[in-house]
Amino acid sequence: MAAAGVPHGRDSTVGGVLRRCRELVRPALVETVGRLHPWTAEMAAYALGWSDAAGTPDPDGSEGKGVRQALAVLGAEAVGADGGAAVAGAVAVELVHTFSLLHDDIMDGDALRRQRPAVWKAYGTGPAVLAGDALHALAVQCLAGAPGPWTGEAVRRLCGTLNALVRGQAEDLRFERQPWSGPGAVGMDQYRSMAEHKTGALLGCAVALGAVLGGGSAATVAELERAGRHLGVAFQAVDDLLGIWGEPAVTGKPVHGDLRQRKKTFPVLAALAGEGPAARELAALLESPEPPDRATAARAAVLVEEAGGRAATRGEARRHLDAARRALRGPALAPDAAGELDSLFVSLLDRSR
Amino acid sequence: MAAAGVPHGRDSTVGGVLRRCRELVRPALVETVGRLHPWTAEMAAYALGWSDAAGTPDPDGSEGKGVRQALAVLGAEAVGADGGAAVAGAVAVELVHTFSLLHDDIMDGDALRRQRPAVWKAYGTGPAVLAGDALHALAVQCLAGAPGPWTGEAVRRLCGTLNALVRGQAEDLRFERQPWSGPGAVGMDQYRSMAEHKTGALLGCAVALGAVLGGGSAATVAELERAGRHLGVAFQAVDDLLGIWGEPAVTGKPVHGDLRQRKKTFPVLAALAGEGPAARELAALLESPEPPDRATAARAAVLVEEAGGRAATRGEARRHLDAARRALRGPALAPDAAGELDSLFVSLLDRSR
Repeated sequence: MAAAGVPHGRDSTVGGVLRRCRELVRPALVETVGRLHPWTAEMAAYALGWSDAAGTPDPDGSEGKGVRQALAVLGAEAVGADGGAAVAGAVAVELVHTFSLLHDDIMDGDALRRQRPAVWKAYGTGPAVLAGDALHALAVQCLAGAPGPWTGEAVRRLCGTLNALVRGQAEDLRFERQPWSGPGAVGMDQYRSMAEHKTGALLGCAVALGAVLGGGSAATVAELERAGRHLGVAFQAVDDLLGIWGEPAVTGKPVHGDLRQRKKTFPVLAALAGEGPAARELAALLESPEPPDRATAARAAVLVEEAGGRAATRGEARRHLDAARRALRGPALAPDAAGELDSLFVSLLDRSR
Repeated sequence: MAAAGVPHGRDSTVGGVLRRCRELVRPALVETVGRLHPWTAEMAAYALGWSDAAGTPDPDGSEGKGVRQALAVLGAEAVGADGGAAVAGAVAVELVHTFSLLHDDIMDGDALRRQRPAVWKAYGTGPAVLAGDALHALAVQCLAGAPGPWTGEAVRRLCGTLNALVRGQAEDLRFERQPWSGPGAVGMDQYRSMAEHKTGALLGCAVALGAVLGGGSAATVAELERAGRHLGVAFQAVDDLLGIWGEPAVTGKPVHGDLRQRKKTFPVLAALAGEGPAARELAALLESPEPPDRATAARAAVLVEEAGGRAATRGEARRHLDAARRALRGPALAPDAAGELDSLFVSLLDRSR
């Protein structure tokens, strides 16, 4: 007989798991977004990839994979509950994720998101601020209004995560004002704190919310949250690798994009922490008052690799992925859901976009 | 013997009440803002009027009167509790108010706030988006973390209010795209809905949160919330009067400012709803493709008054103030606190800025 919430014969491929979770969550997500003012609902549907900027439905468009909602559903199933118990949490984390991308794109001046104009480019900065605020408020409201005995605990976790996200974005924005080397340079510890706040917190929250709403014990919730946090830090490291060495046709971002934008990412900081000639040449390139052109960025990418930045980042991703997978083996989790979480974790690190 | 929370001989003037409430709430407000990342804390302190844009403390600077925190404290006292019971709610509503001003100034392009540069002017748009997000998240976290049996109810109310605020701002921003007259023009009902969401919701929430946290009955909480909502709509009407006829030296805004910006406010919409020659001349002035110069705005102000817009707005403010005061007489409220609420309500409508 199948375990609770794990019907016999279900599709346990990563694609199948993600699809199953999206289908489980979608009705509630659509209903929740439908509570917004029609204009903010239109911007939300665009941000979620459900429609184009004219408001025309685009069902096969640019919808994300729904990693966070899947983590929430699997978190509930991992503690033996039905995945349906996690739906309010899954909706909340998807809305928080959409809110944070939307506002981060304004702050970072990023004009493209999933190969389409960012919301602030498509609708204007003011409306995009409003749409983000609407999604932020809606996420908390949706969770706070969920029935059941675990709502208070779930809301407190979501609030802590929202604060962490904002802190991570503050840390990241401040990096721009810090020098590349010398006193006041961004340290690896500072970078890790940013990654934990900006990326780890929400992935940890997603799986923990599912486990909380599924009635998991405090110890199990803590282990699952730890798994999600490590996954997030590993995910950020892979993002940093793709930001330099990703294939533009696949990532939708320019070649060596993060170097051309002079973003202080893990590979570059790890390279600069070295002592050799490549590190010194790289520092000189980056400290130039001129923004790097295409050739300079290409040279910088070679130097980051020579100075060990690429290998260090791969090592960082691997260590955190391993820690995340270990955390899945600790507690007494439902084996099917734990296995699906494990496969999902691995697939997220082995990606090209 | 004095009633609970009402020490004998306290200063019951409006100024005294506001000061007492600010002093009660301030330690928690300072502690809560201190949890933020130092950069967002600096922007928050600026927005709250505690410091200048260089981060230098400015204790007698531009701090607001703290109307919302006072409403929360008096809400608790009105149901017989100690004002201290309302502190988490008072902190939350002040933070929500600060967040909403901060983001609204970005969306509306308003460069001045309390006679100083708005946060986005002083720190940049991206950082101001971030600071608003930080205050939004912090407000909910602070309330969700409060002890006691009423936290869940209080959080649900705050979430509903945050959604109403965003809806009100969406409605207000959409007015800009609607014509002044003919099909699709902004109706008085649309305007009232905007005012209820944008201004009524938070004032109603403030007093209701205090009453909830003070353990008030559902019926009493509902009456107090109704009082606060009516107060908010009246407050917005007075704001609209000051936006046209306010004394620039007192309001810190340009003469006939709302007319020069062609804002669709109650006095103008009420005037346009008339049938006479003044309404027709006013519509022609406002529909001109050129933004009104000083002389045109002055003529428009005369026409709004001639067409009855000023009197209608005064009537609207008066009706809602009366309804708010009636709601204070309904339930069995602690008389000292109810009296102080009543005086505060009257003073907020009888203001010059």
